[in-house]
Parts: sequence; C-alpha cells; structure tokens
Amino acid sequence: MKWPAHGSNPQYLYEAIGMTLPEYYIDFSANINPLGPPGVLKEKWNDFFHEINAYPDPNARRLKAKIAMQEQLTTESILVGNGGAELITLVARMLKGKKVLIVQPSFSEYENACRANGCDILYYSLREPRYELNLDELRLKLRDVAAVFLCNPNNPTGVQFPTSAILSLIAECEKHDCFFILDEAFYDFLIEYDSFVPYIGKYQRLIVIRSMTKMFAIPGIRLGYLLASPAIIAELKKLQPHWSVSTIALLTGELCISNAAFINRTQTYITSERERLFSFYRQQNFFVSPSKVNFYLLKDPLLEEQFPLFKFLLENGLIPRHTFNFPGLGGRWLRFAIKNRQENNKLMEVLMQWRQLHP
Amino acid sequence: MKWPAHGSNPQYLYEAIGMTLPEYYIDFSANINPLGPPGVLKEKWNDFFHEINAYPDPNARRLKAKIAMQEQLTTESILVGNGGAELITLVARMLKGKKVLIVQPSFSEYENACRANGCDILYYSLREPRYELNLDELRLKLRDVAAVFLCNPNNPTGVQFPTSAILSLIAECEKHDCFFILDEAFYDFLIEYDSFVPYIGKYQRLIVIRSMTKMFAIPGIRLGYLLASPAIIAELKKLQPHWSVSTIALLTGELCISNAAFINRTQTYITSERERLFSFYRQQNFFVSPSKVNFYLLKDPLLEEQFPLFKFLLENGLIPRHTFNFPGLGGRWLRFAIKNRQENNKLMEVLMQWRQLHP
Repeated sequence: MKWPAHGSNPQYLYEAIGMTLPEYYIDFSANINPLGPPGVLKEKWNDFFHEINAYPDPNARRLKAKIAMQEQLTTESILVGNGGAELITLVARMLKGKKVLIVQPSFSEYENACRANGCDILYYSLREPRYELNLDELRLKLRDVAAVFLCNPNNPTGVQFPTSAILSLIAECEKHDCFFILDEAFYDFLIEYDSFVPYIGKYQRLIVIRSMTKMFAIPGIRLGYLLASPAIIAELKKLQPHWSVSTIALLTGELCISNAAFINRTQTYITSERERLFSFYRQQNFFVSPSKVNFYLLKDPLLEEQFPLFKFLLENGLIPRHTFNFPGLGGRWLRFAIKNRQENNKLMEVLMQWRQLHP
Repeated sequence: MKWPAHGSNPQYLYEAIGMTLPEYYIDFSANINPLGPPGVLKEKWNDFFHEINAYPDPNARRLKAKIAMQEQLTTESILVGNGGAELITLVARMLKGKKVLIVQPSFSEYENACRANGCDILYYSLREPRYELNLDELRLKLRDVAAVFLCNPNNPTGVQFPTSAILSLIAECEKHDCFFILDEAFYDFLIEYDSFVPYIGKYQRLIVIRSMTKMFAIPGIRLGYLLASPAIIAELKKLQPHWSVSTIALLTGELCISNAAFINRTQTYITSERERLFSFYRQQNFFVSPSKVNFYLLKDPLLEEQFPLFKFLLENGLIPRHTFNFPGLGGRWLRFAIKNRQENNKLMEVLMQWRQLHP
C-alpha cells in the first residue's frame, strides 16, 4: 500500500486504504490549532481582496520588521518563506550532496528534501517510551556530518527536549563546522519555553525554522520564517523563487505575529484538553507519548500493530495520522491532534467502544 | 544606483532614485489586467476563508483536472506552481550546471534562476525596432546548449513570434537533445494564437510555462502551471516543496481557469486601448515596440537615454518600468502596462506636457 506522505487531505488516505471518505468526519491527522484562525483575520479578510492585484513585497519588509522586533534580531537574520516546507527545501539545497543527521522519528520533509538534493542521510533514533536525547551518543554521531536536523518540540511525539541538552548540541556542532537546524514549528504551543534565538549571534551555524500555520490555523495560506546569521540568510535567499510568499500570507502574518492573547488562550485550552484526554487514556489502558503540545502518539498496548484500531477509527469517521513513514515508528503508534472539546469527546466515545470490543 | 529587479512595489523604485513615493500614483510597471480580478472571485472570496485551516491538496487534483480538460492533456503532463517564478526556478534546478541560451531582452528571472544553479549562460539578442527572431542565427546557437528559454509573446517588447518559427525551433531542439522552454505568461492576451501544447506528445523536450496572475489580475496570490512530458513533470515535482501552492491559489485557479467571457472582454478592451495609445504616440512622435498584448516599450526618439523622461513621469506619480536590467535595452526604453481608460488618459496627458516642454 502507498500511504499518503502527510496528514490532512483525508481523501488520499481513504483511497489508499480502499474505503470511501464518509460525509461527516473529524480530521485528527493535521496538528492545527483547534480554536481556528484568530478573529482579527476573519474581520480583515475582505480587505485582503483589494491587495491581490499587486505583486507581494519580495522583501517582506513589514512582516520582517515585526519579527525583528519580537525576536530582537536585525532583519538581515530573517527569511520569510512559503511555509516551513519551503524553508526546509532551501536548507536542503544549501546542504546538497553533504552528509546529514536526522534525529528521528520526526517530520518526514527533512529526509525528502535532503534526498532530493543527493544528501547522504544518517539517523539518530529516539527510543520509546520517552523519546529522549542521549547526548553522549548524539555527540559522537554529529562529528561525522555537515548538518543535524532536530525538531523541538518533536513531531510526531510532542516531546520537548531539555534546553541544556539542545544548547550543548548547538555548541558541539559549532566546533565541528556542522549546521544545527532546529525546527520549532510547534514551539508556541509550549507553556514553558526558552528561546534559542539569542544564540544566533554567537553560533554561526544555528538555523531556527518557525511555522505560522499551526498556531494560527492557516495551513492553507503557507507561511513560515527562518532565523540565522545574515550570511546563511543571503545564501538561502538566492535559492528562493521571486515573490515566493503571497500577499495574503504577508498580510496574515503581519496581523497574527504578535497576538499574545490568542497564543495564551490556545495554550490554556490545549493543556486542559490534553489533561482530560490523557486521564481518559490512563483509565482505559491506552499508551500515549509524553507530549507537551497539541498532538501526541497513542497506541493500544494490547495490539502489536495498530492497523485494526486505525481502521476502526476510519470507519467511524475519525482520522488519525498513520505512522508508517515515520522511521522508528512503522505503524506501531497513531498520531492525534488535540481538537476542540466536542471533537475530543467524540474520539473518547469511539475509543471507549473499541475498548469494550477489545477489553 | 541599484535598480529594483522587477516592476510593482514602487516604494523600492522611489527609494533607489532618492524620491518620495507620492500619495497618489498610477503603477504602469506591472503587466496586470486593468479590469481587475473576475467578479466571481470577489463573490466567492468570503467562502475561501473557511478553507484556510486545512492543508492545500499537494496534488492540486481539482485544478489539474480542469487544466487537463482545457488543454486536452493527461494530468501527468501538468505541474501546478507557486507562480511562474517558482516553475522557472524548478526548471533551472533541473538544468543545473548546464549551458543555456536565453533569447533576450526578456523576463530576467530565467537568467537569475539559471545563475543561482551554476548554469553557463549564452544570449541571443533580438534587434530593434521589430525584435524578430532570425532563425538561421538561432539554429546555429542552439546546437551548443542544453536548453533555450523563449518568452512568447515576449516580455518586455510585447512582440508575438510567428508560430512557424517557434515550431521550427522546437523541432531543431529535439534533434539536439535540447530543452525548449516556452514561457507563455501573456499568451491569453493574444487575439490570434496557435497553441503549442498539442506538440508536447511529439516533442519530449518541450516545456510550456503559463502564469495565471496576469490575465486574472492575481499576482498577490501566486499561481501558474507547467505543461510537459510526464517524465519532466515527475522530475520537477520531486524538487518542489510540499504544499507549495496555497489553498487560496488552488480555489482561485479553479474559479478562473475556464472563464472565456472574461478573457474575451479583456482582449477587446486591451486592443482598443492599445490602438488609442499608439495613435497618440504616432501623433506626438514617441516610438513604441510592435506589441500585440497588454504592455509595450516606449521611447522619446529625441532622447538618447530615457532617464529624464522616466524622472518626469515619476515626479507626476506615473510609474513606468525601467529597462536597465533587460540585457539589450539598458535603459534606452521604458515599459508600460496598458491600464484602464482613465489611467491611460492621464499618461497621455502627462506625455503631452513632456512633449510641449521638449518639442
């Protein structure tokens, strides 16, 4: 079977599995803020229409000024991109033909983009059930490579790595002329978070990638940004298509970027829903990954392979993310986004039915 | 002086030249349909908002089905892109390190993208005042190269090349294993046009690039498509970032693609305005390129260099496109989009003032 490469777009999943997409379904396969886009975006949406007949600012000047203010960086350290995926592609082009290390399981686009650029790919595999970093092992591995990809908090586990461990890896990379690519696509869902951005001045090979599509629930719009030394930014910019980021994305970013109230409200909501879900899972004997964010891995420990549970959920119109293409997971877990209260209730209700059938 | 690389975004032009962007201005520097986006797009714009919280279809299935129907091609011969600029970048990556021929003056992104990919660049220069192809010269030049870029109708001249000449070049390229990249960004402004798409089955190295942003006045949204053999499409797709085309772009494309009434109305409007403008220019002794589309080159033959006229127009809030970075033009012409009747009237009024000052 050829599994879809990513979540969302559930029609492809149902087709791959030979089932019909039901009329009513809940998509748990994409890790998007269940509160939906900020209200201010809906209010301004009509105004955006009047901007589509001019080219986007290829320098994203207004948005970069806002990011620079928030991150206390100069605009020369910022590259705005057509989603995190484009930024990962640009980094992979810079690493063309080099040897790279991917801390896995993780977002599959690091590997796809590096493969498309002829990189030689090594893995460091995080181990169940806590998926923690083993610094001694990692330090040894990174001596050999030109770049390390680490996602923090990690996708698909939701695990947050200790700040001290990441800092120690960044420093070690710098010693070995190795790029440290830190994907922070979900950092703004963390209640406790120490920024690594202040270290960009000190470490010339640190690259931080941020997505705006998860927190602000705008994956259909495509927007992300990358923070690094001005030399790296200049190199990546040369590889980026002109006008890569749409006017709609730029305007959306300018409206959303500093919306602290919305971010705080989201964090509180997610934390409360996660606790409610995880408490249910403990009671019903489902295993979950120790997630700190808006998604988590789940398995029924009574099954070796989760396919029967996966199918049962799909039949009920509940769509998890398969994990067949996450190296190290291979289908032994399912990933779920934390959705809104009503949707999470529906998930618990169907999992309860499953448990009654498979006690 | 560092000139902006493209039209639109006039703030960068005024900054480069050390002037202040006036509050009221008319931007003639971007070749966008003066009728604005089709009405149906405005009607549906609010519905689009409800689609932004899901990922775009990475296979653009619905839009590709519509393009396939229109062009009588299979969907395997279609790649949808984040604007023509992304598609040019993908083609240039495929040509990495190769020798390429650019028929110039033309859109500067061919050269930028090829340079970023280490290509060796040769030029074939079209000659004033008619900017026609000399087939004997071109045939000799293309024996040496791995790819030829030709824009038809050409930007910035607006000249349409004869169908027979292009077909003869496509056939010659095929003989020499040379890609023929035909940029048709403005083809739908032509009243008489023979499609080259039916030749894609016959010639394995023919690549046709189309933009949807000019005719449908949506450059802020970013959307284009590329037509070629399934083998070329598969190779380019591997290099494209995942979810490169936004949901907004896909929905916009699906609404606009088959809008024949809108296209016809645009062609009639543009033709009538072009005739009105060109008649004025003849009377007032301005030279123009023999354009068949929605933009043209203009110069005052009484000036060797057009900078004084350029500055005069900018001071009056009328913004032409400079031609300093079009090889072969070097500032000796200015490019103007055909705007709406009132805007074109304003241009003629100010050019009349110029002529009275410089008879």
